[in-house]
Parts: sequence; C-alpha cells; structure tokens
Amino acid sequence: MDEMFSIGVDLGGTNLRIASYAGGVDFLDTILVPTRLAEGRERVVRDMCEAIQALATKDYGSRRLTGIGIGTPGPLELPEGILRNPPNLPGWDGFDLRQAIESTLGRSVEIDGDANVAALAEQKFGAGQTHNVKSLCMLTLGTGVGNGLILNEHIWHGSTGMGGEGGHIIVQDVDGAACGCGGFGCLEQYASAPAIVRMAHELMGSAAPATSHDIALLAAEGDPQCRLIFEKVGHALAIALTGLINTLNLPLYIIGGGVCEAWDLFAPVMFRELQLRSYVYRLTAPEILQPTQLERHKTYILGAQLGPSAGLLGACLLPLQQKSGSSQLLEDPLVHQ
Amino acid sequence: MDEMFSIGVDLGGTNLRIASYAGGVDFLDTILVPTRLAEGRERVVRDMCEAIQALATKDYGSRRLTGIGIGTPGPLELPEGILRNPPNLPGWDGFDLRQAIESTLGRSVEIDGDANVAALAEQKFGAGQTHNVKSLCMLTLGTGVGNGLILNEHIWHGSTGMGGEGGHIIVQDVDGAACGCGGFGCLEQYASAPAIVRMAHELMGSAAPATSHDIALLAAEGDPQCRLIFEKVGHALAIALTGLINTLNLPLYIIGGGVCEAWDLFAPVMFRELQLRSYVYRLTAPEILQPTQLERHKTYILGAQLGPSAGLLGACLLPLQQKSGSSQLLEDPLVHQ
Repeated sequence: MDEMFSIGVDLGGTNLRIASYAGGVDFLDTILVPTRLAEGRERVVRDMCEAIQALATKDYGSRRLTGIGIGTPGPLELPEGILRNPPNLPGWDGFDLRQAIESTLGRSVEIDGDANVAALAEQKFGAGQTHNVKSLCMLTLGTGVGNGLILNEHIWHGSTGMGGEGGHIIVQDVDGAACGCGGFGCLEQYASAPAIVRMAHELMGSAAPATSHDIALLAAEGDPQCRLIFEKVGHALAIALTGLINTLNLPLYIIGGGVCEAWDLFAPVMFRELQLRSYVYRLTAPEILQPTQLERHKTYILGAQLGPSAGLLGACLLPLQQKSGSSQLLEDPLVHQ
Repeated sequence: MDEMFSIGVDLGGTNLRIASYAGGVDFLDTILVPTRLAEGRERVVRDMCEAIQALATKDYGSRRLTGIGIGTPGPLELPEGILRNPPNLPGWDGFDLRQAIESTLGRSVEIDGDANVAALAEQKFGAGQTHNVKSLCMLTLGTGVGNGLILNEHIWHGSTGMGGEGGHIIVQDVDGAACGCGGFGCLEQYASAPAIVRMAHELMGSAAPATSHDIALLAAEGDPQCRLIFEKVGHALAIALTGLINTLNLPLYIIGGGVCEAWDLFAPVMFRELQLRSYVYRLTAPEILQPTQLERHKTYILGAQLGPSAGLLGACLLPLQQKSGSSQLLEDPLVHQ
C-alpha cells in the first residue's frame, strides 16, 4: 500500500495558510498568502486553489494525495458547505464555498468550521492526546470566541453543521453588549480580544491601552482597572462553562487563542466562580488544576497545547477523519471521490 | 427464541412507580407505592425491591425477564450508581443506590437519571418517534427543571453520568435566585413550578396564588402580573435554549412537565427571544412552529408527547438499551448478568 499525504487550508480573515501533511504534528510544506478579501471571494478561492495545486503536484516520493480539508470561519451549513452570514468574511453570505472550491479544483474536498478543526487537532495531537481524552470542548479566545466540540473522537456538527457555537452562549442577560451574531450578552463580547479592549475603554476611557496584549501587560504589573477587565473575562468564562459542564459533563475543556497569554489573570476568578456556580464542576473538581496526569471522574480546564497551528493541522486531519476507525487513517480512498 | 419483558422503576420524591413492560408505549402491569423517605433509604429500597419481585414472579406466559431499569433523581455518579447530594432525596448523599438494590435483589440492574430516561422514552416513543429524530434535548419543567440529552439514539451521560443537567444553565447572572444546586440564577429558578410561585410572591406579595397552576389560570384570564410571570419563564427558557441550540445544533428540543400546561403563556416570548438571541436558531427557525412533519435543516421546539409516564417508560427501556443495535431489543441476555 502506498503512503499518503493530505492538504489542509486554514482560511482566515487576514491570511490563507495551506499545508501538506503526512501525520504527526509537523507539516511537509506550508504556503502563506494574504486573504485578498477586498478583491472578492472568487479571487480568494482562486488563490487558495492555486496553492493547493502547487502542493498537490509536489514530489513526495511514493506518497499519494488522499484528500483536501478546508477550515473556514462560520457559520457553515453542512453537509452542503454554504456560508451563512459569516461575520469575519463580509460579503460571503450564502456563498457555496464547497462548490466554488470543488469546481475550481475538479475534485471533492472536506470542509468544516475553523474552530471545529482546531478542536479536532487538539484532541488528536494536543491536550487530548497528552491526557488520553476522547471527548473535549475547546474555546478559542481571539478576534472572536471560537468553539469546537469533540465527542468520542469526532467533531459534533449538529444537524446543520452549526454545532459548537459556544462563543454565543449568553453570559449577561441584562444590558448585554451587542454581538456580531445579532444577539447580545454573548460570551464573545466578554472574552475575546476586541471585547477586552472595549471593556477597558468602558472603564478607563481614553486612558485605556489600545490592545488586549497591552491591557494584559498593565494588569500583570498590578494596574487595578486592567486586572478588573480580566476578572470579568474569568467571570464570563465561568458562566458559559457552567452551562457546558452541567450539560455535557466532559472530562476536558480547553481554552486557546491569544487571550490565553493572560491565563493567570482570568483563571483564578474562572475557577472560583465555577466552584460557586456549577454543581457538576463542584462534584468533579480536581485537587490539582494542572496535573501531568488526569484523574478519572474529574473535570479539567486546561490551556491549549498546539497554538495557532491547530486550525491548519485540523484542516489537514479532516480528510483523514471521514472514514470509520482510526486504523484506516491515510489508507482509505476519499469519500465522494 | 422466548419473548422477553423488562421491569422499570420511576423513583420519585413522593411516589415509587414500578411497571412490567414488553414493548410499545403500554405497560403490562404497574404498581404505585408511596416513597417512604421519612422511614429511611433502606425502607425505600426494600419497598422498591418487593414491588420488583412481585412483577418479576408474575406469570407472563412464555415471557422471560430480560432486565430491570431504575430511573432516579440525580445527580447520579455513573457507572457506579452513587447519588451525589440529590436535592429531592434528602439524606441520600453518597448512597450507593445500585449496590443497595442489586444486593437486595441478588441481580444486576440498569440505573440512570430520571430526566435521562424520560428523554430516552420521548426519543423512542414520543416526539422523536413521531418525527423520526435520533438526537434531541428534553427539558422537564416540574418541581425542578430536568434535562436529558439523547445523541444518536443514546443517552449522553458525560464522563461521570452527570451530563444533562441543563436545568442549571445560568440564565440570570446578576442577582440570580439561589438554587438548590448551590449556585444561583439557574434556569430551574425561573422555569420550575416552585419558581413560578416564588416569582408571583415577589411580584404580588400575599395576593399571589399558591400554586403555579392557579397562577396559570389567572394569567390565562388576562391578569397582567400573572402573565408577566410566564413571560419571565419564556425569557429564561430562551436564554438557556440559546446556549443549547448554539452549542449542540440539534433538530429537536422538547419541553415537558406540568408547567407546559401554560405553553401558550410562555412560548410566544420564548420564540421571540430565541429569534433575537440565538443566531443558529435564527438561521434554522421553521416557518411553521408546530408542524405535522419536520423540515430538514430546521430547529424545532415542541411539547413532550408522553406525559408523566415518560420516566417510567424510559426506565423500562433502560435494560433494552445496553445492547448495540435496536434490532436486538428484547433478545439479548442482560449485560453484567
């Protein structure tokens, strides 16, 4: 049997990252190009497909291309692969991304939400692998709050592909901040990088630092107002996690994204509030919050392990996930092909 | 092959209901005895086991007993079957219910949370069967707010059996009412029968009716304060359902329990708020809320179909669910036996 490789794409609002992959956590080759949103979605798809073709035709010895995976900002309607009013891809509402890519490439692709594939990568090669956990929930605190749900080693898509939108759990019922999703009071408005900047402005006016990174630096130096912002982040995370933990009772919740640099600033309030708010957490809270080995019957909340490449790695894993049974990875013919 | 029957127990805070069962929605025989909590948990277990024995030794022709299922108030730690500080069974904290029953009966039993088994029954023989839906989330608005999650035809237990505690999703962050779970602001404090009575007292003082049923009657007659109470119920349900819908994206959410008699009082606000709050709901909301046939790619919120017997029916189904493949129901030998 020939060896295989896959190609993955991480479609971001700023950059397109494309990689070839043959297992493990490293890529064979990667390509980085800007996402030229201003030139229209067809241009972005063409750029993407050119990079895919460049990797597809590379010489990897006896390795044969087994499939192509695309991670995209959502909401994404599955199995069709149609974008529904995606906040980070303005003008792409109703765009049949799968069809556009497949007709350009002349072959089928696997497509999924960017937070879903990042969670898949964390389960296969990050915290899930380290701790031997088959089900986990990942929250990514970045420009938005992404969420991916892995149940029994598979992405939980829900009935239309829109499962794992936990960034839009309501954490503030009254006077909640307006959210890009059209709702208000969503977790995303209290735990993303732009939310941290907004909360700092609300509290400090023009004296507020311009980035969440700078706010975190000031907080780490002891600035009481900046510290308060991250306590609000921890509080909001606890409200959302209470719902997730009480409903799903998973062994592991992972928090990733750039805001995690401020873990020490938001985590103490998060854990304290979880003890107060979630009785499932209280019944299953571990004595050691960050152990080297997880205990059975406990609930853990840990930082992500893979960093920003999780999304690209997950996209590469996507075509390998459509088959049943992990032993068949890299061996089966591509579904739909 | 001989035909089979199972025995189910619905362990409630007031009554013990025990039934023999051979398929469909009807029971062979049922026994109702009071739950003598005041006389101690051993007495309750003895009463339960005597009733089970009475049904186990009945003459059902060629039918052979295939297993015994127990639905109990939770939280229940699984697979052990140990109760963890159950609010509706005072004094039962740490009680190994499975072991107590199994040692009394001299045989193994299947044990699960009461809301979980009710949801299972609704999926197999209620709204799930009517509409051919394999995954659903059920909320039961009664003395508390029970929750059961059925994913791909199986109860989602989570890692310690405490999945499906969605009654304790936080719907009011600030000044939330204290909950029996130890937290505050939980859905249960805004959508259960006692919560309706409490909210009426907060609003109307001593003029408030004494039961949620009477408050519903007054609201139906147009009393503005009583109507407001049920608008709060609808609002709280929308906040919790927003989290569930955005995270799980299931095709069907079922609301059951006695408070559902007031469906017409709380549902309009619930649906209106869901449109505002949950973008996954907004993208998938059906045009006809209560159709005879569900559309693909839509999210439905319907009333439960089975009524108060769902828990007992689900307990009877429990021993038939441990095998893989529904075609093997009533045929396989009991697991663990």
